[in-house]
Amino acid sequence: MADQVQLFGVWGSFFGRRVEVALRLKGVQFEYVEEDLYNKSPSLLKYNPVHKKIPQRGPPDTRGDNMLHNGNPLAESLVILEYIDETWKHNPIFPKDPYERARARFWAKFIDEKLWPVVRKALGSKEEKEQREAIGETHEHLETLESELKEKKFFGGESWGYLDIAAMVIIWLGIAQEALGVEFIPKEKFPRLHKWQQRLVEDAVFKECVPPREKLGAFFKARFGSSAASK
Amino acid sequence: MADQVQLFGVWGSFFGRRVEVALRLKGVQFEYVEEDLYNKSPSLLKYNPVHKKIPQRGPPDTRGDNMLHNGNPLAESLVILEYIDETWKHNPIFPKDPYERARARFWAKFIDEKLWPVVRKALGSKEEKEQREAIGETHEHLETLESELKEKKFFGGESWGYLDIAAMVIIWLGIAQEALGVEFIPKEKFPRLHKWQQRLVEDAVFKECVPPREKLGAFFKARFGSSAASK
Repeated sequence: MADQVQLFGVWGSFFGRRVEVALRLKGVQFEYVEEDLYNKSPSLLKYNPVHKKIPQRGPPDTRGDNMLHNGNPLAESLVILEYIDETWKHNPIFPKDPYERARARFWAKFIDEKLWPVVRKALGSKEEKEQREAIGETHEHLETLESELKEKKFFGGESWGYLDIAAMVIIWLGIAQEALGVEFIPKEKFPRLHKWQQRLVEDAVFKECVPPREKLGAFFKARFGSSAASK
Repeated sequence: MADQVQLFGVWGSFFGRRVEVALRLKGVQFEYVEEDLYNKSPSLLKYNPVHKKIPQRGPPDTRGDNMLHNGNPLAESLVILEYIDETWKHNPIFPKDPYERARARFWAKFIDEKLWPVVRKALGSKEEKEQREAIGETHEHLETLESELKEKKFFGGESWGYLDIAAMVIIWLGIAQEALGVEFIPKEKFPRLHKWQQRLVEDAVFKECVPPREKLGAFFKARFGSSAASK
């Protein structure tokens, strides 16, 4: 029986896009289902086995990173990336060496637990002071990642892998910078990350998974245009 | 060359104890170094390569779950558990099946990102209303875990594994309940979790890694005795 894979995503969210990148790299056929997080229809709730079988997480927790594989619901993009790599073993996204794997996992956690919360704050804050502080913290975390990247082409080395996928949010930051005119990730300050994201968006797989810059930019303007970020 | 392993822990923190459980299960020899999180000595900062090589996290982020293996620093107990299982492959702590592995990882994340923050709040809150709400949320999350445990002996099935180690905090909750006289995890409400933690504390490996109940209880009293929890 062929694998039945459904990805429940939100087009503008990098969480679901991470899963998409891994599925495309592995050549796994999947059906994409767009979720409307803020207006969940009763039928979505009823027929989406993810919401029935795992603790339902309302926005902003439900981030569009749920997957269904042969009837088995999965949630949390970082967990799903591990699952995909263990289930379809060709084109591995993890390094082989346990220590390198641990480093990749550590930095992916860092991105989700340290970087992402301050990025959210920097994007959505209504108060200028709070917003300035959040941008400052964003820069601090990006500096840490810039120095982890070193002179490598990708976090994964010569080719991209798990941590590059986890770090996709940095591409989003660049798009938000263009759209809102705010220096989230200034090129002069983060030359390595800038080149890195350039390599990623030119990659055949990533190209299909990053939303069109204009569309995502327009979304950022509509959603965050009135926040302190754009003043 | 024999493996050189150092565990930098805090005696009362379950984060470092998770690592200890895995090391003992694997029979890995290690040196235990007690960290004083709130009074880091200059020499600790200087000679602890973990703090030099990975972004330093001050309290409450530095949770006593750092390890050094043959000169390689590691941080974050859940990441270290994966590393230990990949480095010393006997007595595996993860299930074999990728879907079971994904479930275990999902619930471990749930414990750290959902359960632990409300437990912290329930323990430390100075306001009665806030504290009551935090206890309510703690119960909700414990109900979810109780129904995930089902009728199994351990989360890992017939024997304990990764998720049981991650869920150790529940033992801490039971000790806090005794010490502070607050119903964090009432027996009648959580019969399965109660039996589960009883099995764990009687286990030869866990017995060595859970601090003496009186000592941990006294710590809870000293630290949280003046909070709303104990009124």
